[in-house]
Amino acid sequence: MSQSVGCTAWFTGLPCSGKTTVARKAQEILQQQGYRVELLDGDELRKHFSAGVGFSKEDRSNHLKRVSFLAHLLTKHGVIVLASFVSPYRENRDYARQLIGKQFFEIYADAPLEVCIKRDVKGMYKKALAGEIKDFTGVQDPYEVPPSPELVLKTAEEPLEQSVEKLFAFLKSRNVLSNGVAVRV
Amino acid sequence: MSQSVGCTAWFTGLPCSGKTTVARKAQEILQQQGYRVELLDGDELRKHFSAGVGFSKEDRSNHLKRVSFLAHLLTKHGVIVLASFVSPYRENRDYARQLIGKQFFEIYADAPLEVCIKRDVKGMYKKALAGEIKDFTGVQDPYEVPPSPELVLKTAEEPLEQSVEKLFAFLKSRNVLSNGVAVRV
Repeated sequence: MSQSVGCTAWFTGLPCSGKTTVARKAQEILQQQGYRVELLDGDELRKHFSAGVGFSKEDRSNHLKRVSFLAHLLTKHGVIVLASFVSPYRENRDYARQLIGKQFFEIYADAPLEVCIKRDVKGMYKKALAGEIKDFTGVQDPYEVPPSPELVLKTAEEPLEQSVEKLFAFLKSRNVLSNGVAVRV
Repeated sequence: MSQSVGCTAWFTGLPCSGKTTVARKAQEILQQQGYRVELLDGDELRKHFSAGVGFSKEDRSNHLKRVSFLAHLLTKHGVIVLASFVSPYRENRDYARQLIGKQFFEIYADAPLEVCIKRDVKGMYKKALAGEIKDFTGVQDPYEVPPSPELVLKTAEEPLEQSVEKLFAFLKSRNVLSNGVAVRV
């Protein structure tokens, strides 16, 4: 099976909020079921699009504009794009929404800062709190909560499978996925 | 009809050598026939990927790396990418080739410099020759001729239709296009 309707599911949230974990699990399942799907992940994309570029507001903005254009073209050609970016500023997410149009869906990975700090998968919060790195979202830099995301995932409370199920139910409601798709754990 | 085999046809050549003219005509015909096709054009892409970035060797290299990644993902998802970039340095084209793999095809728009200067569609050669702009390929900057492109278009001699026909014949030989595709003028 190969779908023809593309979309961009744009995951936003604090570092370590679980964005990429949900996106990766969803990617794995959808690929198994024959969907054309692409995971765009912050770290990987920086290598290709913004090598040597920092994390100031302007740097983030330029980077996310590039990512938005990529997501736009993939969406246009029928790919399900799972875009996982902290993307802390509303204006950057709104830029993506405007470029991509009605197939753009903002997915907010809503986990409390203290949970994210406790997880600290790559030890980045620790470094930021010690002042070793700057411009870190949640520590020195603000995170602007989405005022009206299409979907909120409570990634600190829900098991992973539940978040993925909520995502799939949402994508079915928008006719991106067929009803047959199920989470297999 | 919708093909499933993607590719990147990477047009390279001097400014005003006719790259985009051929790519645009090919795009128009392929779209009419139901192919998934995307034209990536230098000027347009700079807006999205490298706003404010110049034309030094390093700037060009960074820009073309971004473009290569975009072309790679579109190709992977079955899109026929027509990429039209002066891309004067071999190493940048080789980077794209390595990233995209066997579905990368280098198309050399081979027109003599004097013909390109005479065409001068946007008046850029005139400005470059007057020293008003720098880093202009063919004037201050070198153009490294592809040593072994998959296809050479003699865009100063051939009528446009002939170049497009040669492109289509080549893409048929690589099973990207079906035999039914014809140039309609």
